[in-house]
This record gives sequence, C-alpha cells and structure tokens, in this order.
Amino acid sequence: MSFDPATLVYDANGLIPCIAQQDGTGEILMMAWMNADAVAKTLETKRVTYWSRSRQSFWIKGETSGHTQELIDLRVDCDQDCLLAVVNQEGPACHTNRRSCFYTSVTDGEEVELMKPMK
Amino acid sequence: MSFDPATLVYDANGLIPCIAQQDGTGEILMMAWMNADAVAKTLETKRVTYWSRSRQSFWIKGETSGHTQELIDLRVDCDQDCLLAVVNQEGPACHTNRRSCFYTSVTDGEEVELMKPMK
Repeated sequence: MSFDPATLVYDANGLIPCIAQQDGTGEILMMAWMNADAVAKTLETKRVTYWSRSRQSFWIKGETSGHTQELIDLRVDCDQDCLLAVVNQEGPACHTNRRSCFYTSVTDGEEVELMKPMK
Repeated sequence: MSFDPATLVYDANGLIPCIAQQDGTGEILMMAWMNADAVAKTLETKRVTYWSRSRQSFWIKGETSGHTQELIDLRVDCDQDCLLAVVNQEGPACHTNRRSCFYTSVTDGEEVELMKPMK
C-alpha cells in the first residue's frame, strides 16, 4: 500500500512524535516531533527533519551542528500516531553533547547519570 | 539527586510520552502515555503502568492480557519531557499480537509489513 503522510494521526498542533534509534545497536537517541511536511521531507531527503516547537520551523537534524541523522528506515506504529526513525547518527544526538538524550536513570529513587558528554 | 515525578514536563493533558524498549535486545516495543501518578506507580510496583487516553484510567500493561512489562530501568530525557522504560516484555507488546507496535516500514513510498502476529 502506498504511504501518504496525511494518513498519520497528528495531535491538536498537527504533530506526531518520532523516536530516533541508531541502526544496528538499537540505542535510543532522542524523541522529537514532526508535522506532515517534515515526514515528507525526511522520506524525500533521507535527512531526518523534525518540526521545532520552540522555533516553529523545520529542524533538519545536524544542519548547524553537523550531528546529522541519515534515515535508514521509517516505521509507523499500529495506531499511526507514533513514528520510529532508524538512523545513522553522526556524533552526539543530544544538545548536551551526549550520544543519547536518555542519559538519566531513576534508580532506587535517585537520578543517576549514565553517560558523559562526548569529547 | 532524588527523583520526583512532579518535576517532569507534562503536556496540556498532564501526560508524558513513554517509550518501551526490550532490555538486552534494544527492540522498541511501543510508545504510550503516563501521568505523574502512573510514573510513581511504575516505579513503586516495577509493573509498567500507563494512562489510557481512550479509557481515561490507569493501564497496567498486561493486566488483562498477561503480556506484562517488568520495569528494568526508567530513564528521563534531557528536557524531562519524554521517558524511556527498559523492560522485560512478556509475549507481544502490541494489541495486534505482534511483538512490537512498529511493524510497518515505509520503504520506497510503500507500506511494508515487517512482522506477523505471534502464535
């Protein structure tokens, strides 16, 4: 069946969450949001493109930092309301310079830092 | 630092997205939503508990189906607005009886089914 970004289920702001996962390792890098145009651009360019809620503009991941995400595969969930982008992440995915945004564990009621910023 | 679910960033409905990932394999199983009480219950019971938006009630994953998620680790992202639950998933995570909800790939503009329902 042919895929149309318009068939996805967007929230009241026209956005759908997208999880980015490193190809091969399975590491979860980040979660950000896309609108229908960002989904289309991501598929066309193979450069993962989000919608920045703070800037209200397209956010081609790594465009300024160089920490790009090359799209390997885009997957849709059973309810069509969440996306999974399997990617090749160049360097850190997180704005804190860590590989992943999910670097804080809640362990025995305490926040524990699992990884340091990359050099 | 001690963790308090109230410090997370919730949306206008008081919800935060939570990604469930199988421990060890890195497989992404599903994404669903939690409110602050669901986060607290998940940490207390080690049984992953979401907030069902359709039923407007707690959803202890697997309570009726038996397809439970045992919490191995809960992680918070850099913006405190997304959670990652590393879990041991019993059987299928998806209501379609597939292991993961992300069973549809968009490949060359077509939807491709990556996995079949479990027996």
